[in-house]
Amino acid sequence: MRIIVDLMGGDHAPSELMRGVMEAAGKVNASFILVGNVDEMRRIAAEHEYDLRRFDLVHTTDVVTMRDEPLAVMKQKREASMFKGLQLLADGEGDAFVSTGNTGALFIGATLIVRKIRGVQRAAIGAVLPAAAPLILLDTGANVVVSEENLEQFAVMGSAYIRRIYGIEAPAVGLLNNGIEDQKGTPLQVKANADLRACPLISYVGNVEASAAPFGVCNVLVTDGFTGNVFLKTMEGTGKYILRAFKKVFTENYRSKLSALLVRGSLAEMKRTFDVSEYGGSPFLGISKPVVKAHGASDAHAFANAIRAAAEYAESGVILDIADEIGRYTAFQKSQREGGGENDG
Amino acid sequence: MRIIVDLMGGDHAPSELMRGVMEAAGKVNASFILVGNVDEMRRIAAEHEYDLRRFDLVHTTDVVTMRDEPLAVMKQKREASMFKGLQLLADGEGDAFVSTGNTGALFIGATLIVRKIRGVQRAAIGAVLPAAAPLILLDTGANVVVSEENLEQFAVMGSAYIRRIYGIEAPAVGLLNNGIEDQKGTPLQVKANADLRACPLISYVGNVEASAAPFGVCNVLVTDGFTGNVFLKTMEGTGKYILRAFKKVFTENYRSKLSALLVRGSLAEMKRTFDVSEYGGSPFLGISKPVVKAHGASDAHAFANAIRAAAEYAESGVILDIADEIGRYTAFQKSQREGGGENDG
Repeated sequence: MRIIVDLMGGDHAPSELMRGVMEAAGKVNASFILVGNVDEMRRIAAEHEYDLRRFDLVHTTDVVTMRDEPLAVMKQKREASMFKGLQLLADGEGDAFVSTGNTGALFIGATLIVRKIRGVQRAAIGAVLPAAAPLILLDTGANVVVSEENLEQFAVMGSAYIRRIYGIEAPAVGLLNNGIEDQKGTPLQVKANADLRACPLISYVGNVEASAAPFGVCNVLVTDGFTGNVFLKTMEGTGKYILRAFKKVFTENYRSKLSALLVRGSLAEMKRTFDVSEYGGSPFLGISKPVVKAHGASDAHAFANAIRAAAEYAESGVILDIADEIGRYTAFQKSQREGGGENDG
Repeated sequence: MRIIVDLMGGDHAPSELMRGVMEAAGKVNASFILVGNVDEMRRIAAEHEYDLRRFDLVHTTDVVTMRDEPLAVMKQKREASMFKGLQLLADGEGDAFVSTGNTGALFIGATLIVRKIRGVQRAAIGAVLPAAAPLILLDTGANVVVSEENLEQFAVMGSAYIRRIYGIEAPAVGLLNNGIEDQKGTPLQVKANADLRACPLISYVGNVEASAAPFGVCNVLVTDGFTGNVFLKTMEGTGKYILRAFKKVFTENYRSKLSALLVRGSLAEMKRTFDVSEYGGSPFLGISKPVVKAHGASDAHAFANAIRAAAEYAESGVILDIADEIGRYTAFQKSQREGGGENDG
């Protein structure tokens, strides 16, 4: 297992990310290719007494920033660490790639350099969420406008992911909507709800409201990238807001500080549960090799978790499963069209 | 001040709602018209020793259910408590109307029976959210598809609301988007962001990400009703999920129970802060008289809060402000069209 790591981009590159690599190297059975400014890597390594001989280093000084326009930057900065790393992955030099960089650029780079799985119309960015049952939300930002067929493919890919990674034989699929009734949503949701119900490759449970999502009603929640992004960031913002309020409660006086001491372990565990960074980065589903986006604000520990998630993604065989399932989906769609099935209407 | 109250619909009608009316009657300086099954009201009043002589009672046995299709039900069940209440409001029999019933039906009823303010293209359902600064989100579900002009009007109406109710002279307006950069979002958000920036009637701060919304970056957050509904319900679900996890922490053993005792007061206050029901119902903005939707799951206390919010809405004069501002907006739009202004492009 060889993992390619982008050490540039994000809020804390490169020293915090290098610390994350060191943490991951102690936990994940893999070798690493580090892409970035090698002079800086050596400086940081000397400062912290990291042993760089264990790693392959690939030098570049070019970096994709958060302000770069995704499509334009691919032409302008092909030497940037992100695109160099994706090229190494495409060339078979490594088994997975992790980056904290500009999500849009990473997604377009993954699609154009590493390429999609055959039959996949649009790849999607998944996010595994804190919930009472395993739950992946997709898309969370790559495709702000989608078709109902895109949503069906997201459902198929998300089901393959949950089945393989969590061992759930028939993952429950829901469509994110503003109510559970069949007429709810925009015309897209109305049509997608009917199509998902007719799809034999998934276990569809119907429309799911955002308020029900954390409570185990489904394992795969599909939506367009705009809505998915709002969902994910609302969860992040609400969690942060509530945890801050709790922190204030526990530090306001002597009694409350004592109270916090009594449940310190449980509180730390809770904080981890709702810390987005614990969730190990977002897998891109539908790309032919494992690409994982780590949160731009990742600290060392969060980045190490993203690396671990990338290793798991590569080892699991989920990409082969997705290829199989998308093959089945394509055949199903073809039979529907030829047979004048109900999806033709 | 006379408040018309729908005692049917919702999850806990009518006894829990009557308890809410009794709570509100002790706090709000108003008289009440109660619409519902008067036989049941008398039975419940006898059981709980409520004095009904203080109230005007309007009898009906017909009720709009959550499963009724909003537009169809208005024709089929014109005698339902919700529509009867709206008719009383339209006829000037009361100054505000509160209902826990089917949101879609209430919204269509308000639009067709009470009618919109002149110049308002689409009314919107607002939600005042827990945040570091006063914050109203609109639309939260009435209009799943909107135009950029609708969003501008939501911004104008939300600003009038915050200005009047919270005394903030120039409320900061944000557009809910999946990133802060100008090119973010679907074509709707790209256009709306430019239009909002060019609108002289509001203080526009730009695109706002859902994760930043609770931290005081804006006072008015505008979006389509589909996305707004997902935002609101994600907040609700995340809050409930986290508070349950905390509850578990505090009840797992002797030490943690002791810990909870030490901060009991603060915890209760926190729970109230994040309890959607504390937020007193959702005002409909753009309707010519005050209509407030209380959460379907409202208990007595939540319903009393919604009644109080309705009284405040009626007393504040915010509807006159909205009428003024929408008048200015219409004049601005006209001048832009005639003058070949930048909004024409």
